Amino acid sequence: MPRYKLTIEYDGTPFAGWQMQDRPTVQGRLTEALKAFSGEDMIPRGAGRTDAGVHALAQVAMVDLTKDWPAKKVGDALNAHLRPDPISVLACEKVTDGFDARFSAKTRHYRYRIVNRRGPLALERDRAWHIIYELDADAMHAAAQVLVGHFDFTTFRSTECQAASPEKTLDRLAVARHGEEVWIEASSRSFLHNQVRSMVGSLKLVGDAKWTAADLKKALEARKRTACGPVAPACGLYLVRVDY
Amino acid sequence: MPRYKLTIEYDGTPFAGWQMQDRPTVQGRLTEALKAFSGEDMIPRGAGRTDAGVHALAQVAMVDLTKDWPAKKVGDALNAHLRPDPISVLACEKVTDGFDARFSAKTRHYRYRIVNRRGPLALERDRAWHIIYELDADAMHAAAQVLVGHFDFTTFRSTECQAASPEKTLDRLAVARHGEEVWIEASSRSFLHNQVRSMVGSLKLVGDAKWTAADLKKALEARKRTACGPVAPACGLYLVRVDY
Repeated sequence: MPRYKLTIEYDGTPFAGWQMQDRPTVQGRLTEALKAFSGEDMIPRGAGRTDAGVHALAQVAMVDLTKDWPAKKVGDALNAHLRPDPISVLACEKVTDGFDARFSAKTRHYRYRIVNRRGPLALERDRAWHIIYELDADAMHAAAQVLVGHFDFTTFRSTECQAASPEKTLDRLAVARHGEEVWIEASSRSFLHNQVRSMVGSLKLVGDAKWTAADLKKALEARKRTACGPVAPACGLYLVRVDY
Repeated sequence: MPRYKLTIEYDGTPFAGWQMQDRPTVQGRLTEALKAFSGEDMIPRGAGRTDAGVHALAQVAMVDLTKDWPAKKVGDALNAHLRPDPISVLACEKVTDGFDARFSAKTRHYRYRIVNRRGPLALERDRAWHIIYELDADAMHAAAQVLVGHFDFTTFRSTECQAASPEKTLDRLAVARHGEEVWIEASSRSFLHNQVRSMVGSLKLVGDAKWTAADLKKALEARKRTACGPVAPACGLYLVRVDY
């Protein structure tokens, strides 16, 4: 059976997340589009299960098909059948059986966008977190370094997280201002459920001067969910890239 | 009567343009919001009458009110009453009677965004023109210089344009690639109706190698609407800034 690697962009706003369930999901819509063009009942498996409202610039998924279609044809047919939903197959290529979208992933890169200004969001609504009070991005970046490394991230993990272990290695956590936006970029082999949004929510308290870097360290070391700041909203989060 | 200058961002998608009519418009919603908080029947006048689907990063409008409200209060009250429509008052300041949003404008700056890739638009839907075939942005930029200067722009003017004269001075028309996007930026004291979208539609033919710079010059010199390329869609156009 030929295996296809799909690179997918989506606007997470109208979906109940990546993972299939009885409401509209990205994985569900991809499965329907595959069925519509190929007649096959195959479920694409993704590199990351993004939550409701979370976006992707380049999610990666794989799917096996019985028939050996040209990869370009699979991509174009999926896009035709995904219309008018805001899901776009950016690339489709054949890969060997040795490739697994989830387990072969070496690094996942996420970006969290904050628009930091007084006026409400018109063009970036549902695309970023709107914060009125000026955030100190330099202080956030300095504090963020406390979280880089191998730790027990229980504090920054949803109580619904199903990972076997709360220990992860965070490779990069960078905060930088780009005009009126503040971007928080996180890279790791894998993340716990809600980990990025939990870290962003706590970093926002640092940007507000409510927490110091020492408070953030204390929260990490508490290894208690209740030590976490309020979780940041889904709409600001983007799965940017998956490296293999 | 105190006069207020408003700087406004909006997503043009749900509106029948700036100018008030019997369908939802940006000017109409601003007028309703003003009435809701102040009780006054005043119509804000804008620097540029953007068409249906055209966006603004910083449209400028002015409005006179009988009561002397603090400017910050006017901005915040408008934003509260504009919700949930995608219109945001970014700034509100008091100005003298000598200021006129339309007639005092020295330069209007527009940007047209093309996303130039194979995959459909998920996150940028209604925010850019999607063109699949690779455009030659350098050729477009070189050709665009033919249109910079003082000319009779009848070719690039909607047949519904109400301007007294088709002569305008185009100060700048720059085309540049930014990753998978091609931006066309135009600056002028004022533009004819549909001028930017008409110029973009013709430049696209240059990017496609269907027209040369000489063809563009010929179209300009024809001074005939029928000599224009197909007008570019509204969704890619942004009113970026107005200088006074």
